[in-house]
Amino acid sequence: MGQNHLREDIIRMFLEHEGQIISGAELSLNLGVSRTAVWKHINQLREEGYEIEAVPAQGYKLSARPDALLPASIEIGLDTSIIGRQIECHAEIDSTNLRAQVLAEQGAPEGSVVVADSQSAGRGRMGRPWGSPAGVNVYTSIILRPTLALSEATQLTFLAAVAVARALEKSCDVRVNVKWPNDILLNGKKIAGLLNELSAETEGIHHVILGIGVNLNMEQNQFPPDLRYPATSILLESGQRVDRVQFVRDLLSEIDILYTMLLERGFVPIRLAWEALFDLVGATVDVDTGSTPVCGRVEGIAEDGALLLDTGTGAPTPIYSGDVRPASV
Amino acid sequence: MGQNHLREDIIRMFLEHEGQIISGAELSLNLGVSRTAVWKHINQLREEGYEIEAVPAQGYKLSARPDALLPASIEIGLDTSIIGRQIECHAEIDSTNLRAQVLAEQGAPEGSVVVADSQSAGRGRMGRPWGSPAGVNVYTSIILRPTLALSEATQLTFLAAVAVARALEKSCDVRVNVKWPNDILLNGKKIAGLLNELSAETEGIHHVILGIGVNLNMEQNQFPPDLRYPATSILLESGQRVDRVQFVRDLLSEIDILYTMLLERGFVPIRLAWEALFDLVGATVDVDTGSTPVCGRVEGIAEDGALLLDTGTGAPTPIYSGDVRPASV
Repeated sequence: MGQNHLREDIIRMFLEHEGQIISGAELSLNLGVSRTAVWKHINQLREEGYEIEAVPAQGYKLSARPDALLPASIEIGLDTSIIGRQIECHAEIDSTNLRAQVLAEQGAPEGSVVVADSQSAGRGRMGRPWGSPAGVNVYTSIILRPTLALSEATQLTFLAAVAVARALEKSCDVRVNVKWPNDILLNGKKIAGLLNELSAETEGIHHVILGIGVNLNMEQNQFPPDLRYPATSILLESGQRVDRVQFVRDLLSEIDILYTMLLERGFVPIRLAWEALFDLVGATVDVDTGSTPVCGRVEGIAEDGALLLDTGTGAPTPIYSGDVRPASV
Repeated sequence: MGQNHLREDIIRMFLEHEGQIISGAELSLNLGVSRTAVWKHINQLREEGYEIEAVPAQGYKLSARPDALLPASIEIGLDTSIIGRQIECHAEIDSTNLRAQVLAEQGAPEGSVVVADSQSAGRGRMGRPWGSPAGVNVYTSIILRPTLALSEATQLTFLAAVAVARALEKSCDVRVNVKWPNDILLNGKKIAGLLNELSAETEGIHHVILGIGVNLNMEQNQFPPDLRYPATSILLESGQRVDRVQFVRDLLSEIDILYTMLLERGFVPIRLAWEALFDLVGATVDVDTGSTPVCGRVEGIAEDGALLLDTGTGAPTPIYSGDVRPASV
């Protein structure tokens, strides 16, 4: 552990002095180890994919870092007030949500983050599996302890959708749409998944885990063959490969901004931002609720996340679950 | 385990033929063991507190059973459709809610029940301790998997309060009151506590644990000295000692009836039953919400469990948390 920590410190020094040459003497002094030890760790980092030049008579320079999700890489330049207080990264884990749940029950502070390069048992909504290959996507879970009523907990799902949309726009320059209740689509295909889980008692929320999976650099052959819905990745749609570390930073930063806004100003700004990404506002839709089908004009969403439909009967009809499609004319 | 099981079967036979004499030959035949083995188990049961008479030339008769919470005693005569499908009893456990949570995550069926004679780490609302001495009270947790929206989960707390009130009325002939959001009072003192915990995702509830503790035969010196509120027991208020097994059966039966009603007919019947136990309906109250104090006339409770106050501003003001007291005039 101590050895890993030392290598993280070296990376941190390079990242804090981006593009600069750092002398072996300076590294040695700052880290409190011999120059021979510094040299050994630099070589180890090169094996891990860091491109570190040795500049004769001057020192070392980081010219490229691997696209590895490591706490040091994510934390450098992360300017958040709540989210990312603790970041835990795993090369592989069963599920970031399960890990975050364990941490939350052990008392991890609000804003703690779990990131994984791959998940062996990635889960989507309602217990469905979530394909989680290594090295290409982002799988992350964020622990929140909001002072919201139980009926307001659903607001966090809309918050997460808006944060993903904004981070994708910022990092990848793409414009996504949302689908009620919690899908995120790029060109009509699923680009990200949200699984928000909460533990609560009647009088208050113990914690909420915001689980977010985003398909960034996934190739066509990495998608499971038996998908229930069309899915895609940024790479497939735009041809560009996304810097995952930068994306995680942007995502955590957007969540931080929106979460602070939610606590200070309530749901309205989040709701408006989400409705702006929802292309069925004003449209007439059919909802298959499992029992009686409902048809109406979409007005937006309520404080408790219900889809509000104008069915011509006076007050809007709130829909709590169901499959929403544009009405067949 | 097999030996315990055999003794449970003997008790079950006695309870199924209440007051009757069962011959040693019949017990031996039904249980598939020798008459000597039956005799040994009968003696063991006597040591556990069962009063079993030996009637010469006829057999055995159960004349009294100890007030022990055992699955066999509870299940006999329990006429429920959902609640009590599996009953697990513990002489001592950390907390019935924690145990139920483990069972729920392992896939225990809806209606599974955990009962404990004592709790070493009994918990009340918001992490407060709940005094749980042995041999006198009932501590139980029930696993539900309701098809409710997240915002409706609070309805189960009102259901639990109504069930406790009805079971106390039936078993102990006392009339309790409720206090919003989830207190149950007898003569103005706390007689029972509810801790409903839920695990959910945005689109649905995974499970709810209804945690219920009722002070039945607790003596004055068994209450913690540093209580935050006046508390009491049925014994202290009425002088009568309650048959705990019968009380558990009544409680599970009331939950079964009310839960079935909730799923079939919605919250209205539960709400009306709860409001009938709430003596502040129609009264003017002050609510200390932590921020701005609110004053208004109590109209009742909403579908999401909020207290509805008429503050003279048109639509009723929903209160989600706070301390409610009759207004100082």
